[in-house]
Amino acid sequence: MVMTRRDLINRIGRAGGFGAAFVAMQGLGLIPTGAQAAALALPAGAGKGIKVVILGGGVAGLTAAYELGKAGYQCTILEARERTGGRNFTARRGTKIEMNDGTLQVCAFDEGQYFNAGAARLPNQHTAILGYCREFGVELEVEVNADRSAYVWNDHLADQKPIQMRQAVNDTRGRVSELLAKAIDAGRLDKELTGHDRERMIEFLRTYGDLSPDLLYKGSIRSGYKDPPGAGDRTGIIRDPLEMSALLDADMWNGVMFEEIIDMQATMFQPLGGMDRISAAFEKRLGPVVQRSCPVKEIRRTPNGVSVIYQDSATGKPRVIGADYCICTIPIPVLRTILSDFSETYRNAMADIAYGNAVKIAWQSRRFWETEDQIYGGISFVKSLPGMIWYPSTKFMSDKGILIGAYAADADADSLSAKLLSEQFALSRKAIDGLHPGHGKDLDSPIGIAWSKIPYSLGNTARWKPGQEQLYALLDTPDGPFYFAGEHLSHIGGWQEGAILSAHRAVRAIDKHRRATRP
Amino acid sequence: MVMTRRDLINRIGRAGGFGAAFVAMQGLGLIPTGAQAAALALPAGAGKGIKVVILGGGVAGLTAAYELGKAGYQCTILEARERTGGRNFTARRGTKIEMNDGTLQVCAFDEGQYFNAGAARLPNQHTAILGYCREFGVELEVEVNADRSAYVWNDHLADQKPIQMRQAVNDTRGRVSELLAKAIDAGRLDKELTGHDRERMIEFLRTYGDLSPDLLYKGSIRSGYKDPPGAGDRTGIIRDPLEMSALLDADMWNGVMFEEIIDMQATMFQPLGGMDRISAAFEKRLGPVVQRSCPVKEIRRTPNGVSVIYQDSATGKPRVIGADYCICTIPIPVLRTILSDFSETYRNAMADIAYGNAVKIAWQSRRFWETEDQIYGGISFVKSLPGMIWYPSTKFMSDKGILIGAYAADADADSLSAKLLSEQFALSRKAIDGLHPGHGKDLDSPIGIAWSKIPYSLGNTARWKPGQEQLYALLDTPDGPFYFAGEHLSHIGGWQEGAILSAHRAVRAIDKHRRATRP
Repeated sequence: MVMTRRDLINRIGRAGGFGAAFVAMQGLGLIPTGAQAAALALPAGAGKGIKVVILGGGVAGLTAAYELGKAGYQCTILEARERTGGRNFTARRGTKIEMNDGTLQVCAFDEGQYFNAGAARLPNQHTAILGYCREFGVELEVEVNADRSAYVWNDHLADQKPIQMRQAVNDTRGRVSELLAKAIDAGRLDKELTGHDRERMIEFLRTYGDLSPDLLYKGSIRSGYKDPPGAGDRTGIIRDPLEMSALLDADMWNGVMFEEIIDMQATMFQPLGGMDRISAAFEKRLGPVVQRSCPVKEIRRTPNGVSVIYQDSATGKPRVIGADYCICTIPIPVLRTILSDFSETYRNAMADIAYGNAVKIAWQSRRFWETEDQIYGGISFVKSLPGMIWYPSTKFMSDKGILIGAYAADADADSLSAKLLSEQFALSRKAIDGLHPGHGKDLDSPIGIAWSKIPYSLGNTARWKPGQEQLYALLDTPDGPFYFAGEHLSHIGGWQEGAILSAHRAVRAIDKHRRATRP
Repeated sequence: MVMTRRDLINRIGRAGGFGAAFVAMQGLGLIPTGAQAAALALPAGAGKGIKVVILGGGVAGLTAAYELGKAGYQCTILEARERTGGRNFTARRGTKIEMNDGTLQVCAFDEGQYFNAGAARLPNQHTAILGYCREFGVELEVEVNADRSAYVWNDHLADQKPIQMRQAVNDTRGRVSELLAKAIDAGRLDKELTGHDRERMIEFLRTYGDLSPDLLYKGSIRSGYKDPPGAGDRTGIIRDPLEMSALLDADMWNGVMFEEIIDMQATMFQPLGGMDRISAAFEKRLGPVVQRSCPVKEIRRTPNGVSVIYQDSATGKPRVIGADYCICTIPIPVLRTILSDFSETYRNAMADIAYGNAVKIAWQSRRFWETEDQIYGGISFVKSLPGMIWYPSTKFMSDKGILIGAYAADADADSLSAKLLSEQFALSRKAIDGLHPGHGKDLDSPIGIAWSKIPYSLGNTARWKPGQEQLYALLDTPDGPFYFAGEHLSHIGGWQEGAILSAHRAVRAIDKHRRATRP
């Protein structure tokens, strides 16, 4: 059991684990509690004359620089890559994906096509990132996360056919309702239900499961048609219902329940044109604050602050920048390879933090899923390694689109990357051809990413384990002039929202220290 | 029990009723069956020199004229109103809504705002209308039909608070799963489940209902937070789960299950800028074929075809048009007031067909539902007469939007229209203020429509009753040179898709007759 809610993609779990333990330890006084202000409003000009160096130009770093800048702090972001955004990364024609196992891919999509290789969704409840989109005028469109015309398919079983999502969802509910109605009707739950509720439950189950008057599930119009209705005498013929045992055989519950994962629930958004419209919007406002192609080499403590040695983008030679404060947003697997004056406790704490490896594969294709299957966005789930086939939510009804042909969020997928460029593409094509017979051949320009192999990221998200609550609290605590931020220091791990809220927290902490020391 | 699937808005029913009886009667040979070609492809030039007069410029009439025109038929559409589209009707600043009870409203929205007063959704399975959107390049955007941040609220009960949709959906599933797991675990369904399935069902219910290891429903992260997660120590605290009895008290199952109605399932679309973009796209291609402001007065049979007397738009005087064929798409309540040479059987058959009265109220408002409730599109359901509060799916995050403040699809709502302009607006405002406390005052520029009171429509959709199968078959059968089309002659009643498919059917029948008689 690990921490991030991202994991619910593969493991629909209950609230609890790390988070619950964290709260419990706070209750026992083992971890300090702290109030967090709702709005981030530093006094204008408060930071005048104070320098902050921010390590990493991902969403956390960009947010910190933007907010500190508004309050007059003098910020510099040192970003190792040629681009900002970190795991907010959109690939387009010509974009290079270089992995540390030596593979190099160049995106060959047509102009205008793109692939959100990292962050790809904005849930409606993530008010901080949606707030920046609103503030910056980043145009959003709906990201269709669930489409009743998509499929679930246990392709591990030889004789298993894809089941349309509308049938999987509604036949399951029908069968469950039928069984429960049977138990209630036969008086087998009289201990649990009073007479009044017993009757009400039966009535409710009729509607809920679309049961017949005799409380049987005989199929439902909700599950779709084998012959659709039309004019004249075409009344529409509903599908034969699946037996519960057939649904249990299919065993695709994670796919069926995906849309109920709290951060996956409708309404979801995506920026028009690619997720990196968000980092671009930050950058536009930050201007020269952002220094690209400047990998950090050493992080040092000075009598009055910090000193950071980085590689100069122009000369390739080391340069030094001094500042009063440092906000470090570098992912832990990268950070632990950099020389630093962090306290020994801090450095030791970093050793044990695991990161996940999200693997994504994208294809360009004509939109057969729209014209032939009436699938517009949403996700089909397969049991085999591709995990999901995710249909584009942009430019519906245009000629071509970018199909996500695999998305495995699990760290076990680490083995994927070495073989990514051959075997994995073939597996993805096979799964798509199975779901959409004859269309494997329509797929072109594949490109893949394994985040554990991406330099300066080395993983997609921190995977805190129960028992690591103290480590989290420690790594989240400022270490002298060093403050820390990033999705890993939030309870919305793997999401930009977590990165932003952790940046807000670091910004508040610095401003609080300023108030105490430079009144 | 009535026919249209529209009714499922208020009555989640099983497939059956009228449609099932129809099929049964076909089986008994009481109604003729007929094959329907998948694609409509008339030979080019086939209709050269043949005149068709089409009565009604709604979606059925526009479709018929467009398809016949492609095959060389010489068509004229007589449309009674100043606009085409029929029940595809979008109101904007300056649009007049005149009802036959004497009320006249002029839409006072800001420029750029609009309200789809009739048809407002395009389901992904409605391939005919989506096909025309594709063919005409009508730009579509996602219509968010279900939003987990919206609410269900039984406002008939004094102490009932709105329940967020994510909690209603997931607490219900949790409680149902808990009860069923209890029955199975106690061996009370051993007769119904084999040992193997028994274990699998328990495992499934754990995931399905998000049950605890001891098979209890203790709340779920899926149901949302009372304190959302963030950075630092904010792990997120989930809501206390609702008891099943509280959910039964709320009794909002039609709202909870709305998203599973077959024609309401994701992915849904709407044309960018208003539903009437579709009729405009037809019109652009039809040009002078469409004659506006030409109400039909008499429909006559001639030795070689038909003769239609209508009121000339320019002079106000009667004019006559002759044609070889006539396609009549006029809604039945209107048609039965027009003098005609239809056979007596046909005229008698029209007498008994009831039409529904859909009532919609729209408000202009700043988008408090987005900024304060994270609701982006979707629908909140209330028990009281407004029925639903439907949030706009267009121009998210802009300043103002158009909120549907009532949508009652039921014929019982006939009484609404007389009081529409006062009492109904007040009821709608009250419901919205209850769901979004303090925001009733933000609503301005209300406008309402009761379709039963709209001249030339007199209802929103035919409501066939079981027992009327023969009437349907009769009214759907050509009567000499008269052919009939419209949503009422389809099994997708109340939807543009039904109107289009019925038009295709009439077009095919005319072309078949032409082939037989003018080889």
